[in-house]
Amino acid sequence: MTPVGLRQDPALIERCINTVRALAMDAVQQADSGHPGTPMALAPLGYVLWLHHLRHNPANPAWPDRDRFVLSCGHASMLLYSLLHLTGYDLTLDDLRQFRQWGSRTPGHPEVGVTPGVETTTGPLGQGVGNAVGMAIAEAQLAALFNRPGHTIVDHYTYFVASDGDLMEGISHEACSLAGHLRLGKLIGFYDDNHITIDGATELTLSDDAAQRFAAYGWDVQRVADANDLAALDAAITAAQRERSRPSLVIVRSHIGWGSPHKQDTAEAHGAPLGAAEVRATKENLGWPSAEPFFVPADALAQWRTAGPRGAAIEAAWRERFAAYRAAHPTLAADWERRMAGELPGQWDAALPQFQSGQALATRAASGKVLNAIASRLPELIGGSADLTGSNNTEIAGAASFQAGQREGRNFHFGVREHAMGAVLNGLALHGGFVPYGGTFLVFSDYLRPALRVAALSHLRPILVFTHDSIGLGEDGPTHQPIEHLAALRAIPGMTVIRPSDATEVVEAWRAAIAHRGGPVALILTRQKVAVIDRAAYAPATGLHRGGYVLADAPGGAPTIIVMGTGSEVALILGAYERLRGEGVAVRAVSLPSLELFAQQPQDYRDAVLPPAATRRIAVEAGSPQPWYRWVGDRGAIVGLDRFGASAPYQRIYAELGLTVDAIVARARALLSG
Amino acid sequence: MTPVGLRQDPALIERCINTVRALAMDAVQQADSGHPGTPMALAPLGYVLWLHHLRHNPANPAWPDRDRFVLSCGHASMLLYSLLHLTGYDLTLDDLRQFRQWGSRTPGHPEVGVTPGVETTTGPLGQGVGNAVGMAIAEAQLAALFNRPGHTIVDHYTYFVASDGDLMEGISHEACSLAGHLRLGKLIGFYDDNHITIDGATELTLSDDAAQRFAAYGWDVQRVADANDLAALDAAITAAQRERSRPSLVIVRSHIGWGSPHKQDTAEAHGAPLGAAEVRATKENLGWPSAEPFFVPADALAQWRTAGPRGAAIEAAWRERFAAYRAAHPTLAADWERRMAGELPGQWDAALPQFQSGQALATRAASGKVLNAIASRLPELIGGSADLTGSNNTEIAGAASFQAGQREGRNFHFGVREHAMGAVLNGLALHGGFVPYGGTFLVFSDYLRPALRVAALSHLRPILVFTHDSIGLGEDGPTHQPIEHLAALRAIPGMTVIRPSDATEVVEAWRAAIAHRGGPVALILTRQKVAVIDRAAYAPATGLHRGGYVLADAPGGAPTIIVMGTGSEVALILGAYERLRGEGVAVRAVSLPSLELFAQQPQDYRDAVLPPAATRRIAVEAGSPQPWYRWVGDRGAIVGLDRFGASAPYQRIYAELGLTVDAIVARARALLSG
Repeated sequence: MTPVGLRQDPALIERCINTVRALAMDAVQQADSGHPGTPMALAPLGYVLWLHHLRHNPANPAWPDRDRFVLSCGHASMLLYSLLHLTGYDLTLDDLRQFRQWGSRTPGHPEVGVTPGVETTTGPLGQGVGNAVGMAIAEAQLAALFNRPGHTIVDHYTYFVASDGDLMEGISHEACSLAGHLRLGKLIGFYDDNHITIDGATELTLSDDAAQRFAAYGWDVQRVADANDLAALDAAITAAQRERSRPSLVIVRSHIGWGSPHKQDTAEAHGAPLGAAEVRATKENLGWPSAEPFFVPADALAQWRTAGPRGAAIEAAWRERFAAYRAAHPTLAADWERRMAGELPGQWDAALPQFQSGQALATRAASGKVLNAIASRLPELIGGSADLTGSNNTEIAGAASFQAGQREGRNFHFGVREHAMGAVLNGLALHGGFVPYGGTFLVFSDYLRPALRVAALSHLRPILVFTHDSIGLGEDGPTHQPIEHLAALRAIPGMTVIRPSDATEVVEAWRAAIAHRGGPVALILTRQKVAVIDRAAYAPATGLHRGGYVLADAPGGAPTIIVMGTGSEVALILGAYERLRGEGVAVRAVSLPSLELFAQQPQDYRDAVLPPAATRRIAVEAGSPQPWYRWVGDRGAIVGLDRFGASAPYQRIYAELGLTVDAIVARARALLSG
Repeated sequence: MTPVGLRQDPALIERCINTVRALAMDAVQQADSGHPGTPMALAPLGYVLWLHHLRHNPANPAWPDRDRFVLSCGHASMLLYSLLHLTGYDLTLDDLRQFRQWGSRTPGHPEVGVTPGVETTTGPLGQGVGNAVGMAIAEAQLAALFNRPGHTIVDHYTYFVASDGDLMEGISHEACSLAGHLRLGKLIGFYDDNHITIDGATELTLSDDAAQRFAAYGWDVQRVADANDLAALDAAITAAQRERSRPSLVIVRSHIGWGSPHKQDTAEAHGAPLGAAEVRATKENLGWPSAEPFFVPADALAQWRTAGPRGAAIEAAWRERFAAYRAAHPTLAADWERRMAGELPGQWDAALPQFQSGQALATRAASGKVLNAIASRLPELIGGSADLTGSNNTEIAGAASFQAGQREGRNFHFGVREHAMGAVLNGLALHGGFVPYGGTFLVFSDYLRPALRVAALSHLRPILVFTHDSIGLGEDGPTHQPIEHLAALRAIPGMTVIRPSDATEVVEAWRAAIAHRGGPVALILTRQKVAVIDRAAYAPATGLHRGGYVLADAPGGAPTIIVMGTGSEVALILGAYERLRGEGVAVRAVSLPSLELFAQQPQDYRDAVLPPAATRRIAVEAGSPQPWYRWVGDRGAIVGLDRFGASAPYQRIYAELGLTVDAIVARARALLSG
């Protein structure tokens, strides 16, 4: 694309760029909070990229083949908000005036879904880099699957901007190493090399040679020595676009708070308002025509708004291409539209396996079978494991591995990079066209927790396959045995945790996960074998969809005691149920695979499962008791774990730590006699 | 050090090395679980390093100036256990036979405190690399503080072994970038470059040029082309030792499962027993003299056991040096011994500040004052922040920054590297001589959670300063506002979370943290100002040490309702208390800054604070309600948050989300009328 603007009136261009600086200063000053320095430094990059390279249509932020722009350093949100407003997105000057105020569309850090044109929620550093890698993967796979000779309907770049902080975070290593391995040639990053962090000069803590580091990952690296050099920025972007075999990093030497007479190149410009006097001085220094806050020169706005017709033309041309594509390849076009709309195909769950009692298999093994059954009818289901493919049972049989030369591959080898995996899944979900999943051991959910949180906050629905879910993994020992993880995951707002008790519940768990919307779903699965519950004798597994259900009841539905649990411990509560029933106790057994789904049920359903009058309750779960107090109540008891596990064959650990039918029965007797 | 053994009988040396291979195969086979391949590959490195370089005394694993050896790839535990047994640590062949069995000293992954000679708990990949960086920092600082001309009492290397997995993990980037910046010249790492991961060949997922990557961090990098080339290993180690201005990485090209005719260089050798037939075939292939499991040739054992006299002589020489040091510098020597013993100096808490009602200050600000007061009397208190020094109030005023040229510096600039910070704190604690602390925003506790877990499992006591602890941080918005983090931290076994309500509780919180042993302590602190509670009118803050205490009581100590809470929400419960008391309600206000400390109190104390008869209870905390069900009971209520926060001035967020005195009073009235 020709950088038309770069041949235009230099004074006008400078006014355009300074508009971003002024808006950023003013908004932060008005909010008395925020980060003005980076928007001021990167305003020229914003100008060159957004007005001359970014293929986007401000009138339609949902145009599916738009370039993606990720501001990984989300604290520089006023850069993004300014660009969105100026190029004509549905974001007004009044919205900017409401920066960081209750109910505004300009929150402190960008949030997807809140602000038109914001592609992802950033702020927790490094997440955006991982998201961008996921988006670039999405583009590469969709292009491979859907483009046809003469019909290119998927063809966009993914740009990201990263700060020192983003690149210090470990996730940047994982994500950029993966991107280099995968040769994501349409991924283009900008490193805002400003030599300043919150604590002061980066030399306090950072001596990396970033260019050498990224070269080690297999990236193409360029340098722009002056962030105000528009021609150099333009040339670097153009070269990065042409480099299709490797991701590109453009290291831009910038000056935080550029234009501020007293705060440029200082940490003071990073995370606080400049102050009214310094804002004034900066505007004078920049030759800014007005002291009025939020002033936008008419000619600058007009120049910025050329993005509108340009974007409309780009999208219109694409729509023409898509119409030709639909005519030539109607089935492909329909499938593409369905996938991008996030709609499931009919009959997607028609081939789910059935499991019969008498069998015993690990729920992770059942999960692998269900996953494969779904995958055969749901091409958008893609994913993999953080180097535990065989253990997590996450492989789609017969499908290729996603690699540089195999863009259609549905099996992802994320490597031992759990955190990047989490952020990449989010990027795939954000891009659209995919139902992404990723696996690791439950204990390592900690490694990707920040990405899970962003998924929940962003209402994304990656599916996490967390296997080896308890002391039941046995010999690997306490470093690998989760204890606190169920509690920790359940505490995340919007997260849905499902821990099926047997293979039949695994079928329903996957069905629920695929149908779920608005937040991540974690499937929690055993390493060890568990018997398939006899669904003729006990209630059907479809009860899982309500989070909890009565598996086996007391005579007349009037229990004097309730035993409840999740996952592999349901076998124990059924054992206790049968024992107590044999002793004439009116006992009810409840499977509670998802406390979140159960909590969302109407009160009358919950009361039907856990009658308020039945106050003698025992919850059994091989993990922290914290989530269970709510459900057992004052007269109940919890058979859980408030210690770390141990290294031994798992049966021994269960016995030593008191997770046995005997122990449950003893607790029941104590409650009944209490 | 002269590699004596390398000039000895090559056949004997080979037997020594094959002993490690045989023991690893046999132990994994017997346990029917484990990872034989890496011990088999790295046995030669073990031989050269442990017998000819590592300055250690198998008879005294606690000798303080020993070299540290960290097996970051903890799954290769049989390498370490074999080396410990063979060189004469208190670990018998019977212990090896008990590999991965209940109660054994040879758990699946190495655990510090369980096995003599194990320096740190590893298995969660990357943690050991970070620990090693912390140990090397500890050595550098102690050497700077305590060595004197002619008296070198601190002078050791820190070695670590890292796998592909360790180096794919993001924490390796953070830790190694920091180590390079800090020029930790006595840190020496070995990269087991075996081209195999669990999923298969590393080329599936990894294309990094590791040498270039570490050069970018400022490390010295060497290559050993053949893991069986003892002379090359020896030369590389010697060169790495001589390189004192940069950390060293030795990239060792190895062959997983070396010697196995059918499984060498395959993923099958990684994480599963070779199988009885393959063990037999491998022993034959290696020319092993016996098919008997756990066979150790007498001459090989004798050779290995030369480590005993060698180590004893090394320690004895050091003890002589230390005696001379003590004579010359008795005060320094006493202080060093005190610090290494983990004992606090007398009067360490004599200068703590006092805060008066009428003031209002953020608990993070109070924390900064208390930290400084303690630091002036506790030189082992060192730490810093992950690039939020000013926000976390973690700086020790007047102290230098720890840098390459400032080894005495007590202020650490960890950079935006939360995960490495966590692992480095663990390494400092493991080394001994320090009370380490580290700060970041509470929301970013997620980024270092795996390190916190290892600290808890290892009974280490880093102190975490987590500020900006709720929606009270305001404008930065939901990406930065913790919701689930208190619940998630509290769920970790052995973790102590303290959320003081005001500056006076902050004093006690720090006092508790410094005195605490056996697990990490997290101090949870506000960004916003909170009024100092009038301790003349309400109970003294020393109640914090019992986790919870009655702040203000109903007449006669007979409450009909209890309001309880933590942190900044205690101001709300006191407001509600006063309002209800004014209305004639018999109300009690309880401060519960640490649910863990409270749960550890005897039942009678807990009942005195929360009388079982007082079933109307309201808990108030700006976070997930999950931890509170236990304490409010069936008739209680929780005023918490089960949604994400919002970007706005904090007072508005509190009001909009219902965390107000009015809302608490309304809930109280509802409970009282219920």
